[in-house]
Amino acid sequence: MSATPAGDSPFQQGSDLLSTSQFSRESVERLFDLADGLRPLGRGEFACDVLSGAVLSSLFFEPSTRTRLSFESAFAHLGGHVLTTTGFTFSSMAKGESIHDTSRVISGYSDVMVIRHPDKGSVARFADASLVPVVNAGDGDGEHPTQALLDVYTLRRELGVRDKQVEGATIAIMGDLRYGRTVHSLIDLLRLYPGVRFRLYSPPSLELPAEYFDRADAHRLTVCSSVAEALADADVVYNTRVQRERITDEATSQAIANTVLLNRQMVTDHGRPDLVIMHPLPRDSRPGSYDLSADVDDLPGLAIFHQTDNGLMVRMAIFCTIFGIDLAAVRSRYSISKWVSAKPVPRPAPYSAD
Amino acid sequence: MSATPAGDSPFQQGSDLLSTSQFSRESVERLFDLADGLRPLGRGEFACDVLSGAVLSSLFFEPSTRTRLSFESAFAHLGGHVLTTTGFTFSSMAKGESIHDTSRVISGYSDVMVIRHPDKGSVARFADASLVPVVNAGDGDGEHPTQALLDVYTLRRELGVRDKQVEGATIAIMGDLRYGRTVHSLIDLLRLYPGVRFRLYSPPSLELPAEYFDRADAHRLTVCSSVAEALADADVVYNTRVQRERITDEATSQAIANTVLLNRQMVTDHGRPDLVIMHPLPRDSRPGSYDLSADVDDLPGLAIFHQTDNGLMVRMAIFCTIFGIDLAAVRSRYSISKWVSAKPVPRPAPYSAD
Amino acid sequence: MSATPAGDSPFQQGSDLLSTSQFSRESVERLFDLADGLRPLGRGEFACDVLSGAVLSSLFFEPSTRTRLSFESAFAHLGGHVLTTTGFTFSSMAKGESIHDTSRVISGYSDVMVIRHPDKGSVARFADASLVPVVNAGDGDGEHPTQALLDVYTLRRELGVRDKQVEGATIAIMGDLRYGRTVHSLIDLLRLYPGVRFRLYSPPSLELPAEYFDRADAHRLTVCSSVAEALADADVVYNTRVQRERITDEATSQAIANTVLLNRQMVTDHGRPDLVIMHPLPRDSRPGSYDLSADVDDLPGLAIFHQTDNGLMVRMAIFCTIFGIDLAAVRSRYSISKWVSAKPVPRPAPYSAD
Repeated sequence: MSATPAGDSPFQQGSDLLSTSQFSRESVERLFDLADGLRPLGRGEFACDVLSGAVLSSLFFEPSTRTRLSFESAFAHLGGHVLTTTGFTFSSMAKGESIHDTSRVISGYSDVMVIRHPDKGSVARFADASLVPVVNAGDGDGEHPTQALLDVYTLRRELGVRDKQVEGATIAIMGDLRYGRTVHSLIDLLRLYPGVRFRLYSPPSLELPAEYFDRADAHRLTVCSSVAEALADADVVYNTRVQRERITDEATSQAIANTVLLNRQMVTDHGRPDLVIMHPLPRDSRPGSYDLSADVDDLPGLAIFHQTDNGLMVRMAIFCTIFGIDLAAVRSRYSISKWVSAKPVPRPAPYSAD
Repeated sequence: MSATPAGDSPFQQGSDLLSTSQFSRESVERLFDLADGLRPLGRGEFACDVLSGAVLSSLFFEPSTRTRLSFESAFAHLGGHVLTTTGFTFSSMAKGESIHDTSRVISGYSDVMVIRHPDKGSVARFADASLVPVVNAGDGDGEHPTQALLDVYTLRRELGVRDKQVEGATIAIMGDLRYGRTVHSLIDLLRLYPGVRFRLYSPPSLELPAEYFDRADAHRLTVCSSVAEALADADVVYNTRVQRERITDEATSQAIANTVLLNRQMVTDHGRPDLVIMHPLPRDSRPGSYDLSADVDDLPGLAIFHQTDNGLMVRMAIFCTIFGIDLAAVRSRYSISKWVSAKPVPRPAPYSAD
Repeated sequence: MSATPAGDSPFQQGSDLLSTSQFSRESVERLFDLADGLRPLGRGEFACDVLSGAVLSSLFFEPSTRTRLSFESAFAHLGGHVLTTTGFTFSSMAKGESIHDTSRVISGYSDVMVIRHPDKGSVARFADASLVPVVNAGDGDGEHPTQALLDVYTLRRELGVRDKQVEGATIAIMGDLRYGRTVHSLIDLLRLYPGVRFRLYSPPSLELPAEYFDRADAHRLTVCSSVAEALADADVVYNTRVQRERITDEATSQAIANTVLLNRQMVTDHGRPDLVIMHPLPRDSRPGSYDLSADVDDLPGLAIFHQTDNGLMVRMAIFCTIFGIDLAAVRSRYSISKWVSAKPVPRPAPYSAD
């Protein structure tokens, strides 16, 4: 029930979250500061009931278990109650119910809705009919704004513990740059940070679409012809899975046969010692996949699980913003957790700085 | 574990809710008064933990997402914990487990069970084996008592804000009167209210079954041959979807081809200015459907979403009754919600009187 | 992230629960004492929020509704929040994600994970990658340790109210002793109790594997050739379903055609008057099944539903142990439940001694 198209409204209390374009540099940094403040809650040092009585309807019209669990865990950590619906049980829509009716009805049971849907633009249509704020958890070829937010939040943290900043950082982006929605959203959101330089490496035919090069923004996009070239001077390497079946060119297909996108050897040969290694996950660990190899997993720069851990913090911050709750309000509802479930072996600290 | 058939027991603390026949005029009005008192809770003005520690097992052997979410949201609003199971995962019954065993086992984990099942009478069989109260959320061709209750509750509220009463009201019922379980339950439950007059309109072969005309009750049932005739003097029009494939008569099929059941033009041409428009939902919004048109959606009498919103209040009242909780007990466990998720644009008030 | 194989670590705060081999006689009795102390909580006499703020990820890669609900209800009774995922929605693993990545990611959202998986050993692989404790809810042909624990807990209680002890008890085990994982785990766990005697009855070709006879432990295993022989002097009879299609021998198949595994007549003819009747459930109640007959259901020794009821108590005790919560801590977070949902007819006491 938005007065203006929700994608154009700034993200604030009571608003939908449909697109990263709703953020300014100031509002995205405010969100990240809030996420930083919520880390003790996300790590279980405190219990909190600030969202007691609030109901989240988590509606996944296509499966995305990890995204769903991350949102639901964030809401539960704030003391709210989660009601889950996954794709197979949307019976009324099969009987011809419109998105408008479905959304309006369920919004009457809910204080906020998180929606994943396979069709681009569909989540905005849910938002138009809803009485309560709607969060886009991915709408097909459209957007997945919380993924881009947690990626930039992770960049900020990982670079921060290395005494660097996002501004002026060099980020190698490798893999499927054509179809990879995650990569597009990341580049878009990073326009808020002047001076970021991207080094792009992809198999032929999976290059970044031309429109990204035409934009008059502060980015410097450099196309590289090898992993070595992409990694040169990079502070961060962001990898995305390549589905081999998308490569139709025979020569390319042969050239990358029996190789992986990135492995430990390539990192140690061509990367800086403090290189941050990122990936939106899932990565394909099957034999023959063209993806990030598991042999990088004990490199000190591995941040792929920090990304998912950070997703919890960022999504808590998103819910707090939507419900008009600041850090002081959260802390006023902290109680010390009496329970500790840590395994007897030391739980690895997500960050040295943490 | 009922001493008497549960369908014959009055609805009260600790009892199953299987049928609308468990209600007297007094007990149904008491339920509605309680639902009225719970509205501020349902609208998120307060959080409440009166059912803290109670567990609802929500068992849907067939999908009905909105009914399920309405029940679950009602329980969560009272502070209880919801455990959801949807049809696809009932593995033990596929291995030959009886309804008795399934129900007895799950009741040992639960404080109340809400059950939807495709087979008429099956929910009563669950209730017979259960240690805890069972609520019927629809059993195929059997009953769906909470739908009838929320419909009559909505009638009471909508007529109330128009300075009318359910007694003596004229209700047009249109659509599939033969197979529409909702319509049958509504007519049955309204027998508690003397002097209600029904004006019936349906395509030939989908008429109300003869048994409803044979009953010696206070109703006046008038069969109408057109929408215009049905709407004459009606205070309320209650629409139900017609599945075109159920119309086997060729002449009828042709007569209603390219028409809808009810649209804005018909309402403004033939209806009273304060006509209340109801529908149990889902409505079929696909092109060519014979159902309530979406062009009525901004008419002031549209109550179809008030019905679903009211479902939350009625189901909260049902849980309160089952657990022996009156309004004073609920209010003693209110805490003010610090959070507000309302969208920046004004959230439409469900009722002028609200 | 276990330093030693988890199956070899004692079960204690912060540890995984993968195998019954993690228990000593002392630690299993401590768990059962805790379960006894939690009974008033499991029966709804109190609400408790000792696990407030804790998140359980309940991951069922194959359906097992009752096991899932039992775990989830136990966690909810302690005030924790449950996030459920059932098999059909594990999309990322279908895209080639490893168990390691899936487990590590979801553990970042969770304080504990309960996992059911069809492949033997897979739950231990989840545990290796998880930041938080993992509970095995059944891994195919592997283990289902909480089933064995609730069985022995039930034995202790049922024998206790009959002034007997587990030590020295005679237990008839009947049915499919070859493929019945439950039976194997029960026999294994009962090695902690010296002097238990087993009387085994199964159709030919479904006998207990030879390895159980070769072990040098305190058990006395006696193979019987008839139900009557097995029941002689038995304090308890533990039945398991036989899938007729597993019997390939024609003579055997004919011999047990048109019979059940155990019925009321056999019990009254051959059993002690205080015989305890157990079954892990589900039992196959379809006509022609070779299982425990429903006509035993009103015998005073029927304990099959006590087993499932006890599962709630044992699983609460497991969570308390994992989170380092003793009975005093639980009781310090008790609040009296104001609500009572008991049906008006007397709810049968699970035990005369309860």
